[in-house]
Amino acid sequence: MDTHSEHLRINPARFQANFDALSEIGATDDGGIHRPTFSEAHLAARAWFRDLIRESGLEFRVDEAGNHSAYLPCGPEDGPTLLLGSHLDSVPYGGRFDGALGVLSALEVLVVVKEAGISLPINLEAIDFTDEEGTHIGLLGSSALAGKLSHSDLEHPRGGKVAFIEGLNRAGLTKDGLLNAARHQGSLAGFVEVHIEQGMRLIDANAEIGVVTSIVGIGSSILTFIGRSDHAGTTSMEDRLDAAQGASAFILVIRDILHESFPHCVANVGKIDLMPGAFNIVPAEAILRLEYRAPEAHTLRILGQALLEGARFEANRFGLGLEVEDLGEYPPSLMHDEVRSAITNAADTLSLNHIPLTSMAGHDAQSLAGLCPVGMIFVPSVDGASHSPREFTTWENCIHGANTLLQTALRLAINIDQVG
Amino acid sequence: MDTHSEHLRINPARFQANFDALSEIGATDDGGIHRPTFSEAHLAARAWFRDLIRESGLEFRVDEAGNHSAYLPCGPEDGPTLLLGSHLDSVPYGGRFDGALGVLSALEVLVVVKEAGISLPINLEAIDFTDEEGTHIGLLGSSALAGKLSHSDLEHPRGGKVAFIEGLNRAGLTKDGLLNAARHQGSLAGFVEVHIEQGMRLIDANAEIGVVTSIVGIGSSILTFIGRSDHAGTTSMEDRLDAAQGASAFILVIRDILHESFPHCVANVGKIDLMPGAFNIVPAEAILRLEYRAPEAHTLRILGQALLEGARFEANRFGLGLEVEDLGEYPPSLMHDEVRSAITNAADTLSLNHIPLTSMAGHDAQSLAGLCPVGMIFVPSVDGASHSPREFTTWENCIHGANTLLQTALRLAINIDQVG
Repeated sequence: MDTHSEHLRINPARFQANFDALSEIGATDDGGIHRPTFSEAHLAARAWFRDLIRESGLEFRVDEAGNHSAYLPCGPEDGPTLLLGSHLDSVPYGGRFDGALGVLSALEVLVVVKEAGISLPINLEAIDFTDEEGTHIGLLGSSALAGKLSHSDLEHPRGGKVAFIEGLNRAGLTKDGLLNAARHQGSLAGFVEVHIEQGMRLIDANAEIGVVTSIVGIGSSILTFIGRSDHAGTTSMEDRLDAAQGASAFILVIRDILHESFPHCVANVGKIDLMPGAFNIVPAEAILRLEYRAPEAHTLRILGQALLEGARFEANRFGLGLEVEDLGEYPPSLMHDEVRSAITNAADTLSLNHIPLTSMAGHDAQSLAGLCPVGMIFVPSVDGASHSPREFTTWENCIHGANTLLQTALRLAINIDQVG
Repeated sequence: MDTHSEHLRINPARFQANFDALSEIGATDDGGIHRPTFSEAHLAARAWFRDLIRESGLEFRVDEAGNHSAYLPCGPEDGPTLLLGSHLDSVPYGGRFDGALGVLSALEVLVVVKEAGISLPINLEAIDFTDEEGTHIGLLGSSALAGKLSHSDLEHPRGGKVAFIEGLNRAGLTKDGLLNAARHQGSLAGFVEVHIEQGMRLIDANAEIGVVTSIVGIGSSILTFIGRSDHAGTTSMEDRLDAAQGASAFILVIRDILHESFPHCVANVGKIDLMPGAFNIVPAEAILRLEYRAPEAHTLRILGQALLEGARFEANRFGLGLEVEDLGEYPPSLMHDEVRSAITNAADTLSLNHIPLTSMAGHDAQSLAGLCPVGMIFVPSVDGASHSPREFTTWENCIHGANTLLQTALRLAINIDQVG
């Protein structure tokens, strides 16, 4: 790597101006943003991004999955593309940094390389993936681009079929288009994403950069504890088969299972429905939405088994039945060694403290793992807050993240040249 | 009491024919009925009752609360009325016996007295009260008749305001009418209701008749455990303030509190909402609907306090806040000594095994307690099932209940004469 490239830095003023402008789109009074996929604010953010790409002298591209890109032909015509980016959609009433920071860091990298007039052995692309957060499907644009999207993935949109179809129509997209958006495997030289950590580990370790080693695997299921509905006045406490009792015991036991045997994993019951759901009727059913995460495939599997055993034990203890609907899993994704090395070297060059860590959240990068070398750069989240208006990363660390992306991209480009 | 009266019995064939005909109205495939207040089936049942009253040669009356009555002027003109009855509405997808048995027993008593041509010091009335079960308000017709209904009672119908107003319109009723339906206190000589026990105590005691001593008091509240919403992947188990944990611990501790200190009471959490309610978000709030019942006012109060203390303790233990919305209480209602004696004597005359017991369910009788001498006659529920198509009472015991009501009414009439 030549000295000139090694000293390239992003333009903090331009980067911040873009970030501040984007943060206005879908802004909420409490400092957060509300940009669910295909909402008016989301489409406005994408239109703003398109205009910015063109104003920056970059080529604007959009694919059949609605992924929006800036393209910089700094390499050979028809040469491989190093993809950088993240997403512009948000969870409902979320924060300004999640996704947006990665997209604008990627764009800034392209603009800096363009301004420097550098020729590379690869071309660069800054991408905004469609529906990462799952307003409708989750990791939608990246799965489509990676050729991992199937018809069945589109069958049960989280917000319902009507909202999904209406959203696609508003964005000028179709299901057929989504299923035809796969890129050729050889066309991608790699993918790197800057993202906020959404946890406390970087700040606890006094590090500016997290070099992601893997993205957590996620399993989920619906557990139904089955008792018997009875009159809540005339049925003695002893004669009840109260589904809420077994469900409550299970919710408490989750913590013990994680604490004792799975210290690097998490699990959550985020929703409970008691049926029939009246003050004066003993609940016949307690329906729990369970999600659990582990950094390795093996651990994910035995954690899922341990939780299920816990549920069966508590159901038995209260004389209840248990029905389990397995909703499947996202397997853990290992980040590529070459990308990890490039990130580590970049951070060293920039004199930034860095640590390796697992991403406990899902990201578009996992869609592309296996397709091309993939890596992620984390920056610190103050208080670990995320998916919330409280989400915050110091501006200094945002700049560190973008510069690390820039230096990582240059290193990867040169490595690819050496390998090629 | 003369020998002739003491040997009067209801007509089992007629009683059963009426019961079977009524059970067809709103019948469900599983042997239950679905007659929510002001539903088509409920209004059809009331129309059928009106026609039956007229065919039986009794006077049909309806008041501004929609209470439907058969009236037998067997006493002095403008003399006091002994009210007998229950209700024809049902919980959604409930059983055939709850309410219906009490109304038809009351009607049968009037027909038997009319056929016997007996003159009494009082007049008799068999009443079907409006909305006992609370499709909209609960104990609506009986509260209105007792003058205990206030404007605020009509402000928060359980099924929503629109459904309530539409229902009133369908039944030709108005809110103003409901608030003007109170009877003069001196006009009522008493109220007696036959009802299924809805529990297992009569069968466990091998008794045919339960002489109700009091109707349980009911308290209810909404408890909100307050934690913090966080990303369910990136927030470590230790860093969470998971509202579902405290709520679950409280649900389990309810059983202990009842078992250790309140053996004759019950409590139920029939509904839980976790907010925001997603697989991947740590619940910030757990909203619990709590109901508890006790046979005496003092016990109801200290039970409510003990449950609240338990909730505060568990909230504290998990670092959560607790908000309590007290929804008020129905105080326990003591049955009148004179009516209890009359029921006991009636059961003895009929050679029926009887035991005293508390009603753990609310009934229209509690609305009238304090207004006139009130009592209730319970008959055994097979398996204790109620508010369910499984609800069942043997036909023999239904007849015992109706005959006990007949003999109780005659005894009360004569006592009133002696007192008067």
